[in-house]
Amino acid sequence: MKPMTTLNEPRFDPHCLNKYATLMAAGNGYLGIRATHEESYSQQNRGMYLAGLYHRAGERDVTELINLPDVVGMEIEIDGAIFSLLSGEILDWRRELSFSSGEVARDVLWRAPNGRRYRIESRRFLSAAQKSLFAMRLSITPLDGAAQVKLTTGIDATQTNSGRQHLDDISLRVYDERFLQGVYRVQGSQIDVSIGCHCAVTHTVNRLSAVNRKLMQHSTALVAQGATLCCEKVCWIAGDPDATPDGLEAQSLAALKAAADMGYEALLTASRQAMVQWWRQSRVELDCDNVQDQQALDFALYHLHAMTPEHDDRASIAAKGLTGEGYKGHVFWDTEVFLLPFYLYTHPETARQLLRYRWHNLPGAQQKARRNGYQGALFPWESARTGEEETPEFAAINIRTGQRQRVASALAEHHLVADIGWAVMRYVDISGDDAFLQEEGGELLYQTACFWISRTTEVEGHLEIHDVIGPDEYTEHVNNNAFTNYMALYNVASALKHCPTALLAADFKANAEDFIARLRLPVPDMRHVLPQDDSFFSKPFIDLSRYQAHAGKQTILLDYSRAEVNEMQILKQADVVMLFYLQPGLFTPETQQASLAWYLPRTIHDSSLSKTIHGIVAARCHDPQTAYRFWREGSQIDLGDDPHSSDDGLHAAATGAIWLGVIEGFAGVSVEQGLCVAPRLPEGWRRLRFPLCYQGIRLTLELTPTHLTMTTSAPLTFRLYGRCVSFSGQGSWAYQDFI
Amino acid sequence: MKPMTTLNEPRFDPHCLNKYATLMAAGNGYLGIRATHEESYSQQNRGMYLAGLYHRAGERDVTELINLPDVVGMEIEIDGAIFSLLSGEILDWRRELSFSSGEVARDVLWRAPNGRRYRIESRRFLSAAQKSLFAMRLSITPLDGAAQVKLTTGIDATQTNSGRQHLDDISLRVYDERFLQGVYRVQGSQIDVSIGCHCAVTHTVNRLSAVNRKLMQHSTALVAQGATLCCEKVCWIAGDPDATPDGLEAQSLAALKAAADMGYEALLTASRQAMVQWWRQSRVELDCDNVQDQQALDFALYHLHAMTPEHDDRASIAAKGLTGEGYKGHVFWDTEVFLLPFYLYTHPETARQLLRYRWHNLPGAQQKARRNGYQGALFPWESARTGEEETPEFAAINIRTGQRQRVASALAEHHLVADIGWAVMRYVDISGDDAFLQEEGGELLYQTACFWISRTTEVEGHLEIHDVIGPDEYTEHVNNNAFTNYMALYNVASALKHCPTALLAADFKANAEDFIARLRLPVPDMRHVLPQDDSFFSKPFIDLSRYQAHAGKQTILLDYSRAEVNEMQILKQADVVMLFYLQPGLFTPETQQASLAWYLPRTIHDSSLSKTIHGIVAARCHDPQTAYRFWREGSQIDLGDDPHSSDDGLHAAATGAIWLGVIEGFAGVSVEQGLCVAPRLPEGWRRLRFPLCYQGIRLTLELTPTHLTMTTSAPLTFRLYGRCVSFSGQGSWAYQDFI
Repeated sequence: MKPMTTLNEPRFDPHCLNKYATLMAAGNGYLGIRATHEESYSQQNRGMYLAGLYHRAGERDVTELINLPDVVGMEIEIDGAIFSLLSGEILDWRRELSFSSGEVARDVLWRAPNGRRYRIESRRFLSAAQKSLFAMRLSITPLDGAAQVKLTTGIDATQTNSGRQHLDDISLRVYDERFLQGVYRVQGSQIDVSIGCHCAVTHTVNRLSAVNRKLMQHSTALVAQGATLCCEKVCWIAGDPDATPDGLEAQSLAALKAAADMGYEALLTASRQAMVQWWRQSRVELDCDNVQDQQALDFALYHLHAMTPEHDDRASIAAKGLTGEGYKGHVFWDTEVFLLPFYLYTHPETARQLLRYRWHNLPGAQQKARRNGYQGALFPWESARTGEEETPEFAAINIRTGQRQRVASALAEHHLVADIGWAVMRYVDISGDDAFLQEEGGELLYQTACFWISRTTEVEGHLEIHDVIGPDEYTEHVNNNAFTNYMALYNVASALKHCPTALLAADFKANAEDFIARLRLPVPDMRHVLPQDDSFFSKPFIDLSRYQAHAGKQTILLDYSRAEVNEMQILKQADVVMLFYLQPGLFTPETQQASLAWYLPRTIHDSSLSKTIHGIVAARCHDPQTAYRFWREGSQIDLGDDPHSSDDGLHAAATGAIWLGVIEGFAGVSVEQGLCVAPRLPEGWRRLRFPLCYQGIRLTLELTPTHLTMTTSAPLTFRLYGRCVSFSGQGSWAYQDFI
Repeated sequence: MKPMTTLNEPRFDPHCLNKYATLMAAGNGYLGIRATHEESYSQQNRGMYLAGLYHRAGERDVTELINLPDVVGMEIEIDGAIFSLLSGEILDWRRELSFSSGEVARDVLWRAPNGRRYRIESRRFLSAAQKSLFAMRLSITPLDGAAQVKLTTGIDATQTNSGRQHLDDISLRVYDERFLQGVYRVQGSQIDVSIGCHCAVTHTVNRLSAVNRKLMQHSTALVAQGATLCCEKVCWIAGDPDATPDGLEAQSLAALKAAADMGYEALLTASRQAMVQWWRQSRVELDCDNVQDQQALDFALYHLHAMTPEHDDRASIAAKGLTGEGYKGHVFWDTEVFLLPFYLYTHPETARQLLRYRWHNLPGAQQKARRNGYQGALFPWESARTGEEETPEFAAINIRTGQRQRVASALAEHHLVADIGWAVMRYVDISGDDAFLQEEGGELLYQTACFWISRTTEVEGHLEIHDVIGPDEYTEHVNNNAFTNYMALYNVASALKHCPTALLAADFKANAEDFIARLRLPVPDMRHVLPQDDSFFSKPFIDLSRYQAHAGKQTILLDYSRAEVNEMQILKQADVVMLFYLQPGLFTPETQQASLAWYLPRTIHDSSLSKTIHGIVAARCHDPQTAYRFWREGSQIDLGDDPHSSDDGLHAAATGAIWLGVIEGFAGVSVEQGLCVAPRLPEGWRRLRFPLCYQGIRLTLELTPTHLTMTTSAPLTFRLYGRCVSFSGQGSWAYQDFI
């Protein structure tokens, strides 16, 4: 495998504390830990999250992913000065996240305000081998004389979600004068989280304290000039969002002791080994001029691994993964549409887990449908662990008027239901796991289809879907939204075709056939442009170039109210393009090309989900330059220069989209009645190599500007640029023979 | 009046952030606001407290004084750099609290990391004229070129008590694009606090935001070289701990608007004027060589004003005043014994309010007595607003053993009951307010006396008081503690003599007389030393000098367990000396001298209440050198060099003791069958002048080393060194004529 790239923080910049705390966050699907510095900065937000562990702190509050007590912080005092990179001078600096191991390293040569120099180095990682294990290492070397060092670290339960406390501390203990353990209970529940740590600090005197929700070890040492004080901190963080495991405290303590015995290097080796298999099944390798392209892919895959709770099918992927508190840790359609495809093609068992999350939550979705007068399952727009609708009923109060506004998404952004139906079908088509349709998949398809059948309004003999919001949230409460209607049709048709009969109500078949026959579907106009909804073409056009220049910042809302935006041809992202991405086979190349061209000047790309998807469609429309530009811009949503774009967490969907853009866009992989490949590499990409899993067959694809080379674990038939090819073992084909 | 001193923070020291945040805290009895810097530091704890506003956040928690949303913080960005004194260079520095006005001023000449210099000046005060009003002023002057300044400030409700949240934000509003207002509800109650602010920032563009419990104004300005950007922030913080006032939001907003219209300078003038009368009734003026002596007195009186909720007789003075979260904002015996005397002699109406606090809480005290099998009133050792016992039932878990230990003080430190009885009698004797005895005072005396009568155990025909803790908390669970028994005797005797008959149960007189006749009272031994309790003389003596060298730090507990300390002659503070201070007339000078000398080597002074009291008794024992040494040391508890002694708030009782040491110690003021004066000035004190209020008569006393000069508002008879003097208007006496 080509050597992995790294992510480097080029300099210490107080403005970027939270950006890099997000970008370099550690995660293993079970835990996420923000990459905050050991020393505290008032602007720096620490965070540690356990997948699926949510709580609502007050009646007027929203359920949120709990920010757990901190283990990263260390107060370092050297020769009387509290170590802070704001003071003194940084003579040398390196901070780097290794994507292959997940280890973050920082090496600083610091001249303190007293004029003396100290080398301060730290390492840390969250284990891929043992999900509860987090380990750190800090070393301090005084270069200009002996130094008196004080180090205070432990478990700090003063952490909150922006001032909201979710945990009671029910036990704070120290065992053998070395093992610190706190047990924290989610308020008003019986759910406990145990957090333990062991700090081995060389040649020090230690003191312990438990004051004001902080369980701390205070170490003091005199370090000779040139000698190195080393602190190795091993932490064990364990809990289950559904129930407190029997013997949680004792088992966590035993595990902590065992881990501490192994020591940092051995633990890191074990974690690195556990990652190898994952990278083997996932890595996209690239030879090209722009090294950032490979870095963006490694970054995306690193975080896809970090954010995905593959161990727990009652948890899913939050909109910010496990990297921050944005969107309160809620799950959106992002999971099915932007993140699931990666798993479908590389880790189908994980894709199945993610769909089982929705299946577990069917009861809540059915209740929501009932409450709103529909049948079937209306999945919550925002979802946490229980499947309840977690979107706040009202948006934040308008601070100028004091008015509360109902949140429109939970009321009308119903396409999520069809997106889940689509995801079920994608899973079955790509994995070949037909059995899934007999169980969870069939139920999901059926319940979502029933919702759509009940969601219609009859107008002049047609069935219409009224008052919806498509993915484009700048256009609200429209009728016959193209995205929604086509996706609903596919949902119902799939259910009709694939659901086991035993599941179906007596009248379902007739109702479904009627729905399919009579559903009004927007059709392309004379220019081949597919209308976004019934009213979009009649709205006025305005020049959006100044807003497009600040895509992602919603600057349009500084000049126009939401109501005004709604009445113009202004798109956050283009629904129709999103539809082409999901259902390429439904529309002619002409329609896709004409529509893409027509919608582009009307699209601001204020959604982080927008650009990469537009890029994929552009690639399919044989516009590789536009495709590459969009892909690159999409990959900069987190990696770009904006110091604050990622403050409250990563754009999780955007990482999925980075992978999607390459695989579905540039490699042209799709599954439509079988596996299809239609390479269209961007200029300068000399070689693209990646693994795929298709119907249980393990493939490796290697693309050059002229040739496709494939290895397969079983005989395979696929289409290259639409023409059938059968082979086994390894094959190689020149594109020119197929175009 | 002699010019007031100030308190200066000599340099910016990150270790001292919380020390000076406490020492320079603003307070007006209604609100207390810690003197944190405008810019944030990770070690700096912000705090704003409203007297009497408590809440318990969880079942395992303790009721605590709520840390309110912050209004002090300002994020200042200059030319792209976040302003922090940790970075760049401080070229000039001044930070000063003016005791006369309560204004804190900071002037900094700062060289930013970019090399350019900026003058940054700020002022702030909490109004003495309008208790809800807090005002700040910040100015920034770029000296080496124009500067781009960003200023973010407002109301930050992410504040917690060490991670504990007590408030829900129920309304965040902006009126007229200028007035920010948040309404916060104490969780699970109907009690609201309204916090409003108005920030006028010269020549800026402003933006408003309400995100994550922060309601903020963001101001941006380009400031020319040499020009000054000025920000004037006026805040209105209003609430009532018992009920939400009608129209709280509207009235607070109107008051905020009116205050903002007046502007900083006019508001400060009004506040300063309101302080003048208070200082006139309180100020102690001193001519002496050591300017720190005058400063200690001004410091003490400034904080006595700041901490005392004279507006609310259901609130009392917390052990840390309104300056921090130490002792959770609870009220102890400190109020009656160390703080009340100042009010008795200067603001008797406030003294009465403080006693009414106990009277309001009689029901809780009666319940506690009943629950423990006693009669009358057993006041809670720690008290908040309701009079419930707030001492945690169990001490913090022992982190090594996991054992919880019952807190002994709430179970056995019963002397508080007699201290309250003593305080009632002091109030009546000094104020002459006999009517108080017919009402609240009589009830307090009677209920406390009933408690003592029920608290006895009969042994060989005597009544004994078993299993108590005296003020000396290093000696627990003893029988016939001298302090407790003598104070209980005085309590019962006072009730018998002064309580209105209508209050008394039929058998009270007989029971009280029996109690007085049969109560066992420790008596001095052959050496004239009064035993602290039945067992103290039989315990072994050890050399305490190494612990005395670190008085206040409880270093003895590093070498010995509490159980071991209990079995030796080791005192945190000497009970017997404390008894002499409260009841000087009961004991012969011989007993007092001999006991003081005997107990001193056995006393560590680990209590902040110890030294100044020992100083007063030493003064009365004609040992002015020891008296002055103790007084000075006592005055350094907060003002001394220890950077962390005041981190979680001021030692409120110690401020009362600073005043006490001068008035009762050096001026020798006492009231025993009339006003007594017996000056014994420390060497180097050339003149001591202070006002007194005795039985409604306003007096001014001026002492020199040789003469006493007094003015009186009415004809007065008093005793000077024990000899009666009558005069009116003004009189002057040479000591030598009386000794």
